[in-house]
Amino acid sequence: MVLSELTWPEVSALDAASTVVLIPTGAVEQHGPHLPLGTDTYLATAAAQEIAAACPDIALVTPCLWMGASLHHMPFAGTVSASFEGYAEALRRAVTSLADHGFIKFMAVNGHGGNCDSNRIVFRQLRHERPTLQIAAANYFDFIEPGLLDSTMEGALKSIRHACEAETSLMMHKHPSLVKVEKLRNDGLAAYPDIPGFVSNFDEITEQGSYGFATLASPHKGEAFWASIIQNGAQAVRDFSAGFAYLGIDQ
Amino acid sequence: MVLSELTWPEVSALDAASTVVLIPTGAVEQHGPHLPLGTDTYLATAAAQEIAAACPDIALVTPCLWMGASLHHMPFAGTVSASFEGYAEALRRAVTSLADHGFIKFMAVNGHGGNCDSNRIVFRQLRHERPTLQIAAANYFDFIEPGLLDSTMEGALKSIRHACEAETSLMMHKHPSLVKVEKLRNDGLAAYPDIPGFVSNFDEITEQGSYGFATLASPHKGEAFWASIIQNGAQAVRDFSAGFAYLGIDQ
Amino acid sequence: MVLSELTWPEVSALDAASTVVLIPTGAVEQHGPHLPLGTDTYLATAAAQEIAAACPDIALVTPCLWMGASLHHMPFAGTVSASFEGYAEALRRAVTSLADHGFIKFMAVNGHGGNCDSNRIVFRQLRHERPTLQIAAANYFDFIEPGLLDSTMEGALKSIRHACEAETSLMMHKHPSLVKVEKLRNDGLAAYPDIPGFVSNFDEITEQGSYGFATLASPHKGEAFWASIIQNGAQAVRDFSAGFAYLGIDQ
Amino acid sequence: MVLSELTWPEVSALDAASTVVLIPTGAVEQHGPHLPLGTDTYLATAAAQEIAAACPDIALVTPCLWMGASLHHMPFAGTVSASFEGYAEALRRAVTSLADHGFIKFMAVNGHGGNCDSNRIVFRQLRHERPTLQIAAANYFDFIEPGLLDSTMEGALKSIRHACEAETSLMMHKHPSLVKVEKLRNDGLAAYPDIPGFVSNFDEITEQGSYGFATLASPHKGEAFWASIIQNGAQAVRDFSAGFAYLGIDQ
Amino acid sequence: MVLSELTWPEVSALDAASTVVLIPTGAVEQHGPHLPLGTDTYLATAAAQEIAAACPDIALVTPCLWMGASLHHMPFAGTVSASFEGYAEALRRAVTSLADHGFIKFMAVNGHGGNCDSNRIVFRQLRHERPTLQIAAANYFDFIEPGLLDSTMEGALKSIRHACEAETSLMMHKHPSLVKVEKLRNDGLAAYPDIPGFVSNFDEITEQGSYGFATLASPHKGEAFWASIIQNGAQAVRDFSAGFAYLGIDQ
Amino acid sequence: MVLSELTWPEVSALDAASTVVLIPTGAVEQHGPHLPLGTDTYLATAAAQEIAAACPDIALVTPCLWMGASLHHMPFAGTVSASFEGYAEALRRAVTSLADHGFIKFMAVNGHGGNCDSNRIVFRQLRHERPTLQIAAANYFDFIEPGLLDSTMEGALKSIRHACEAETSLMMHKHPSLVKVEKLRNDGLAAYPDIPGFVSNFDEITEQGSYGFATLASPHKGEAFWASIIQNGAQAVRDFSAGFAYLGIDQ
Repeated sequence: MVLSELTWPEVSALDAASTVVLIPTGAVEQHGPHLPLGTDTYLATAAAQEIAAACPDIALVTPCLWMGASLHHMPFAGTVSASFEGYAEALRRAVTSLADHGFIKFMAVNGHGGNCDSNRIVFRQLRHERPTLQIAAANYFDFIEPGLLDSTMEGALKSIRHACEAETSLMMHKHPSLVKVEKLRNDGLAAYPDIPGFVSNFDEITEQGSYGFATLASPHKGEAFWASIIQNGAQAVRDFSAGFAYLGIDQ
Repeated sequence: MVLSELTWPEVSALDAASTVVLIPTGAVEQHGPHLPLGTDTYLATAAAQEIAAACPDIALVTPCLWMGASLHHMPFAGTVSASFEGYAEALRRAVTSLADHGFIKFMAVNGHGGNCDSNRIVFRQLRHERPTLQIAAANYFDFIEPGLLDSTMEGALKSIRHACEAETSLMMHKHPSLVKVEKLRNDGLAAYPDIPGFVSNFDEITEQGSYGFATLASPHKGEAFWASIIQNGAQAVRDFSAGFAYLGIDQ
Repeated sequence: MVLSELTWPEVSALDAASTVVLIPTGAVEQHGPHLPLGTDTYLATAAAQEIAAACPDIALVTPCLWMGASLHHMPFAGTVSASFEGYAEALRRAVTSLADHGFIKFMAVNGHGGNCDSNRIVFRQLRHERPTLQIAAANYFDFIEPGLLDSTMEGALKSIRHACEAETSLMMHKHPSLVKVEKLRNDGLAAYPDIPGFVSNFDEITEQGSYGFATLASPHKGEAFWASIIQNGAQAVRDFSAGFAYLGIDQ
Repeated sequence: MVLSELTWPEVSALDAASTVVLIPTGAVEQHGPHLPLGTDTYLATAAAQEIAAACPDIALVTPCLWMGASLHHMPFAGTVSASFEGYAEALRRAVTSLADHGFIKFMAVNGHGGNCDSNRIVFRQLRHERPTLQIAAANYFDFIEPGLLDSTMEGALKSIRHACEAETSLMMHKHPSLVKVEKLRNDGLAAYPDIPGFVSNFDEITEQGSYGFATLASPHKGEAFWASIIQNGAQAVRDFSAGFAYLGIDQ
Repeated sequence: MVLSELTWPEVSALDAASTVVLIPTGAVEQHGPHLPLGTDTYLATAAAQEIAAACPDIALVTPCLWMGASLHHMPFAGTVSASFEGYAEALRRAVTSLADHGFIKFMAVNGHGGNCDSNRIVFRQLRHERPTLQIAAANYFDFIEPGLLDSTMEGALKSIRHACEAETSLMMHKHPSLVKVEKLRNDGLAAYPDIPGFVSNFDEITEQGSYGFATLASPHKGEAFWASIIQNGAQAVRDFSAGFAYLGIDQ
Repeated sequence: MVLSELTWPEVSALDAASTVVLIPTGAVEQHGPHLPLGTDTYLATAAAQEIAAACPDIALVTPCLWMGASLHHMPFAGTVSASFEGYAEALRRAVTSLADHGFIKFMAVNGHGGNCDSNRIVFRQLRHERPTLQIAAANYFDFIEPGLLDSTMEGALKSIRHACEAETSLMMHKHPSLVKVEKLRNDGLAAYPDIPGFVSNFDEITEQGSYGFATLASPHKGEAFWASIIQNGAQAVRDFSAGFAYLGIDQ
């Protein structure tokens, strides 16, 4: 169910206690010369909507919070970055507005690495203030089957980076017309010697904005990743809706 | 041109000085039993994108700021409201991020009455801080030809209200599948005696959330309004891009 | 009743439920070469106090919030502008402090166009947070009888602008010693072609700070406007104090 | 010179470098059963304006920041309290707005003890941000000749407290019609044993809101205090305008 | 009792209603060429901990809020200054976090003059919001026996200033290895003529950062001051824990 | 070098360009029944100071930001939690204050998992605002040799958790007197089925506050971890001071 398509009586008629509200969070930021600025927003939105479609009656998708935390990409044209405060306030209001209407289960479906910290901070604050809410800070790429990235990616980096082999593959599968295949390039720089936790802007650690081995991307890889995302994402939503128990780790 | 579809080198290649950045601003809020929660977002986004399409090479559309100032609609389920601070910060960052990339001409294409105050306040602050920017706080419904609302609307209210004859007509034209025609109803209450400037929540001034004579809406009326919006909006963008002069009112 | 003149036991003895708290909101900002910086503050304060005097026992006037939203006048010397945040916080506290003492009916008596947006935003937030409060965002010039401006003003602009024919007339009536009649001039510029919603600073749309046909002002016109303001303002306060009902617009 | 009475060209013609801007800061808060809520505002405003009148051409008085830090008086009806943030922002803008017009010398003429901390904090921030500004956080009662309070006051407390012998005397001198002499009473409680720095609300340390020996107040005492305030305040303004030098304390 | 050394079950077992929570507040700011940057933090922390040790079972010391309000010392290297907002939020959270665990009696043990205003403002806000809390804004130097400073100090200044005779003596007693006795010097400038309340940065009123007659400092003086601080501080904590009554000042 | 022990002329004499400023960040929060509330603060401070001692002349340690982001531990007595805003402002000011004195290289030495998100967000903002600064968000536990945790820990969890086998071992080594060995227990709960990114409070995922196999802790393990922390931390500081180059990942 897509929130913006419903009328208020339809929302009012939902079983708020078992509904999982999915909040896609993305960005409009540079993704190298081959992917569009909206890449994270396109993928997070599509993932959330397809996961919801696979879970009839129990998932409600809000519009995407498309203005993400992208200060580290601002050296590249077209990037629009929220401040932390603005992003946090928007995410907070998305949750509290719907919590005021009775919903209690919320899951971010994030598509932008730069939002991870912010999502966790906001959700921890919300859980402190409203402990009866249940909130998960998921990323769509977390839903990819363990091992699948490792077995499928051919480049030296086996995880999702930025406009990389994996993300480019996903866009080739979902939005092929927005991928400039003639611009695909491998990119990425690393500090030597490495300083643990060093915080870099993207004009310092890339030549043209992407990080990873985009030349190895393919629609076929993207299709495999996507199927895993939707299948495991939908399972997580069903589990979340049905409820869970805490068991001792020592057992 | 749609910002989220472009790569950063494409944005970098634009003539920033003559480009008009269009920022749709909407809402996800109750629109009575017959229109979807996303009505303002759908219409503002479509207006901005069609206006831009009618002005090749000189207009750049950002994604819609869909979380508007909707506190007065919160009594109805599904409404998501930004705080003023969060909305203002998002709008501010949409402008300043792109101004940091060299753009100087910005126009809101607003679709939600509740955003009008906020848009003006934010833009006045921005013009004070960055006087070289040129910024317009337009509403899509301002582009409707003077007189057309009056001559076309049959109900007693001759201006755009909320889920009213005009707005419902526009949705019937642009998104007929999202209009519940079987739910159309006239609605709206007024305080008697009238207190000038009285601030009401929508559960106080409506029975089911809409304000106006929605039963009189028709796709044909919507089509007429829409044509006017796109034609006059595009003319405004062309004028804005080309530049203007200040002349004395006394002359 | 003037709040600052009363002792706390006197305030405590009022019938808080039927008392209308009037909050004048003004500005200290340039008003051209002929009117003093405090024009909006003088007129809003006088209007609120005379309206209250005409409504014995049911109206309580606070001091004027004289630091308004005047960023667009800052290019002219002497202007003092609040930030939105500071103005909003002051207005909010004026209401909540007195609401904490039991008052429920509040009416801004605004004298500065730049405050209109802010007043509405603050009052909408307050009505959301404290729905039992009743709050009106009135402007003193709204109380002028419909038609009177049109029939009395001789210049091409028939509404209140800035240091214009009407405002200058009001000051000639109420504070003649503060009007520099030898400096009266017509002023005002307009962009051509017009960009809907364009946000201008006052050094861009005036030559010396006023907007309108001040040379046509007269104390006699001011007296007529003032009488209408006090009469209709007092009626609004009496109505507000007595209460009102919501009736359907469709009836 | 009173800022609100001037036009912008008059302000523009001042010698900004030698002008001392006086900013009265007051409160609207309970002052016991005998003094009006506006006491601090009346006295601070009158002091600033009379001091300025005694220093022709070198002092410019803004309107009074009448909403002070009065949270500790909120238990008594009619008190209006700013938040620290709102008060600080207003004071900050009063200074920075006029600093943007070229003024560099600012002096608060404070009339409310609860504002002292806030005034110092705001002014220290401003001096850090704009070190060329010269700013003094004066209280009108600081201008009373050393020794005069001690020699004149008859009660056990020899300093200005709240609606006390001294403050009531000042109001008897300046605003006799606003003093309820039939309500004069001595009031004030103290914790025993004393806890250094204990922060009290005024309903805890008074019976009816005043602190001190108001029954000993007289217009004659008030007149003596007032003469000292204006004389020494005017001298401070003349010194401030003329400039000063730093000399070693060890010499 | 030192909070950071306890486990949560130990804190949980305390009698929260009679425990006095001591919050040392200090600074890391320049203290002339002879005292270390951490002087205020060292003394406030030691005072709070020794006072608590003298009051077994009834006092709980938090770590020191070491980043104080030191903007006026920023011209000297090494100074770290909080903003007011950051300092206030930290102090507020120290109190509210422990109040959420049931504690009701709080006392700042401040060691930095620049924090006095902030401590009072924050505590007044807290007492307004949570009137059942009991909060004292004490400074460790307030505990020095009345008369002892006057009888012991040999320089012309008989009160605690900055890196002065008294503060240097205290450091000679408590942290002799951190005092550079070869760098002791008298320092301090004063404006002439004096402007009441003038706000100065420390590079304006000192030559090398200290204010007072440090050459007259001695460990013996410091020992006398310190004994008084701990004795009177401990008495204040015992009084605070035991409770107090309000008595009329007029009796 | 310990900042609080130095005088301002000593700081002024440092080679600011090559000095690495170490900022320990910790917490005062529950650590189960066996570890003290200050555990994270003790370990972060000791790590930063010993690392600095191992790097003479090139490392400067500030006091510890001991009030961390601990909302998720608030259900347990004694926990003191900063808000995000307060923590962020403190960390920001620690950096900007010293950057204003000329330092450019900063490294957090964090000891509390809950601070990781905040440290990264603040540092990204700072690098955007002041791109010439070099800032690393390190955790002391990141300095443990890769493989050492895995080879040394005997419990099923091979990474640092909360009051776990590793953290308890470190405290046994550094602060044995503060460890209650008779209270050691294994603790920890996990949701089943797992919801990716689910945000939990610690009263939900533990029985008594610790997470991991604390019964397996030993001083010997702690000594091994600590040696690795200091050795690798010191190497990182030397590398940071000396400088680094960006090399392509594709080479």
